[in-house]
Amino acid sequence: MQKYAAILDTVRSKTPLVHQITNYVTVNDCANVTICIGASPVMSHAPEDVKDMVALADALVLNIGTLDENQIKGMLEAGKAASEKGIPIILDPVGAGATPYRTRTAALLMKELRISVIKGNAGEIGTLAGADALVRGVDSQKLSGDPVETAKSLALASSCVVVLSGVEDIVSDGKRVAVISNGDPLMGKISGSGCMASVVCGAFAAVSDHFEGCVAAMTAFGVAGELAAEKSAGPGSFKPAFLDAVRAIESGVILKRAKIKEY
Amino acid sequence: MQKYAAILDTVRSKTPLVHQITNYVTVNDCANVTICIGASPVMSHAPEDVKDMVALADALVLNIGTLDENQIKGMLEAGKAASEKGIPIILDPVGAGATPYRTRTAALLMKELRISVIKGNAGEIGTLAGADALVRGVDSQKLSGDPVETAKSLALASSCVVVLSGVEDIVSDGKRVAVISNGDPLMGKISGSGCMASVVCGAFAAVSDHFEGCVAAMTAFGVAGELAAEKSAGPGSFKPAFLDAVRAIESGVILKRAKIKEY
Amino acid sequence: MQKYAAILDTVRSKTPLVHQITNYVTVNDCANVTICIGASPVMSHAPEDVKDMVALADALVLNIGTLDENQIKGMLEAGKAASEKGIPIILDPVGAGATPYRTRTAALLMKELRISVIKGNAGEIGTLAGADALVRGVDSQKLSGDPVETAKSLALASSCVVVLSGVEDIVSDGKRVAVISNGDPLMGKISGSGCMASVVCGAFAAVSDHFEGCVAAMTAFGVAGELAAEKSAGPGSFKPAFLDAVRAIESGVILKRAKIKEY
Repeated sequence: MQKYAAILDTVRSKTPLVHQITNYVTVNDCANVTICIGASPVMSHAPEDVKDMVALADALVLNIGTLDENQIKGMLEAGKAASEKGIPIILDPVGAGATPYRTRTAALLMKELRISVIKGNAGEIGTLAGADALVRGVDSQKLSGDPVETAKSLALASSCVVVLSGVEDIVSDGKRVAVISNGDPLMGKISGSGCMASVVCGAFAAVSDHFEGCVAAMTAFGVAGELAAEKSAGPGSFKPAFLDAVRAIESGVILKRAKIKEY
Repeated sequence: MQKYAAILDTVRSKTPLVHQITNYVTVNDCANVTICIGASPVMSHAPEDVKDMVALADALVLNIGTLDENQIKGMLEAGKAASEKGIPIILDPVGAGATPYRTRTAALLMKELRISVIKGNAGEIGTLAGADALVRGVDSQKLSGDPVETAKSLALASSCVVVLSGVEDIVSDGKRVAVISNGDPLMGKISGSGCMASVVCGAFAAVSDHFEGCVAAMTAFGVAGELAAEKSAGPGSFKPAFLDAVRAIESGVILKRAKIKEY
Repeated sequence: MQKYAAILDTVRSKTPLVHQITNYVTVNDCANVTICIGASPVMSHAPEDVKDMVALADALVLNIGTLDENQIKGMLEAGKAASEKGIPIILDPVGAGATPYRTRTAALLMKELRISVIKGNAGEIGTLAGADALVRGVDSQKLSGDPVETAKSLALASSCVVVLSGVEDIVSDGKRVAVISNGDPLMGKISGSGCMASVVCGAFAAVSDHFEGCVAAMTAFGVAGELAAEKSAGPGSFKPAFLDAVRAIESGVILKRAKIKEY
């Protein structure tokens, strides 16, 4: 447990630069959560700019929430530079499974880039696990009923860490599995929780083993949500309270409140 | 009055998916107000994606606040799919009348798509009413002094519901007219009130008669504004308080506070 | 001192329209701070739209935070119209020095347009001062150790007002220099402080001598930050409190709290 809580301190001492190509809905929340957790955000999507920005960055977060062709070009360009440089790439496949364009693009990014972490909800992770399985047979299209197995199998098939977020957050690298039960229902009542979680995973993965980083990130994120919920009158006041909590959170509090089960 | 308040409960029980192609200034507020009112937001603008997203959606909101050619393509593609599917399309013609590009694009969308609701301020609605009238004669270019008549005439000419928002909100389908006097001046002191109102109209129109849905939406919206203003120290603290209020509002409170006059 | 405080009242009585072509990260904050300070925001970036929008505007703010080729086209088109019309253009060269694309684009805008105000942090202003110096010799690439001299030299070389923001904000037109020591560390812990400051400079420059306008803007901005910090529990609650403070601030309070040194 101690090792997870300690990663937060490492983030804060190293202030990793997290380069984000993301949707225009929650981008401001993503920038602010990056600062509050102790890292540094930079947004850049132009193919002319991303390579040079990646050269400065410690992690790259690709979020397909409001995808278009220009953005895909920027993501591929940035992702190739990040793959070569060896910094972690976090993919948030927003809406994979909802439309073919999103599913296809997530698959393209997974094929072309050395993705380190895929973070999505049950539907998105299930789709990507199934999409992979699809090659092997039609039956596998059905999402497995067990989210732990789904996360594990996608992690194995894609050689990366999978974070399946929900009431319980599941993190797996194909061998190790951690289930985190921190968090608060209010986190599901604001736009941007998922996107912010991906960014925090990026900040933590930048300075640690990717599996341990994601477990630590989701735990810190969930604990901050619990603390913020205590001070909130609803989803509107929850967001500023959440950013305050992310900024104020310390490894000691995380140690005390963390609910992590490891398998 | 009861029938209007009841639509809120229907929104919450059906959780309509509101597909939004909107400006990048207030998009986060739009996403959050959609969740708080009890519906579900999705943003997607790529021509490659919108058709498939509309297939899942219960309403489509088109907001031209930060327009460009790519976005127009996405709006037309999404709008045609929505027209065929028969789900309501809400047009927020931000800045129509301010520049020819915006006026022209609003007119294009009105011509090419089966718009169900046009929601704008006096200048925007007046422009579109006049633009239409223009075809019939130059004198009609002058905006009518009476906003009720302006709303009514645009509704008639465009076979849709018109919502003319302001200190008093006017809703008309060309025959029926409702004037809603709820709201608070602080709503005019934040960016995004108008955009958020359009989205709430979309959520309500998705589950009801469009005229009744818009009356109910603007009333709920105004009442939430009143409740939030009581807890706010200024425009900055008003926004989180407003989202809290939208989430907390119940049909009983709306019934008590609604100020609707019908003609 | 009185003359600086008075400009705020002029902004509020004239409500200048501030046309902004800006990044998608902090655009909502920019819109809200514009309203709170007493001006009026409009965002428009399409080459088809910007010329007509500039015709209505009193200032143009160009912020290259999330640059791409389409945006550059819009910025050049808008900037040329603003140069011809004679309204102030404020350039916020976000990330100049970090990547060649950003440095190059800032230089391009400075070459093609009649920029009135350049507002950036030490790195950005240093880069642009050095980029200019670069033409004259390699040694000048090194940023001068003295930020006042850097600001002054860029102002002289570019015939504009330079605002170098930091713990102390430096404003110079090449001859006059003012150093403002207002503000609070929390301003550096949210995304968007710098972008918002540029917009406020735009609103003030629209109604006054550009040097005096920028001194007044940065002072009002800093004082509002101090007042907001007193009411904030962290960066999350600081932002709404800051917007409240910007809206509530009066010239009397600024007079009392202003820390301006002039050289």
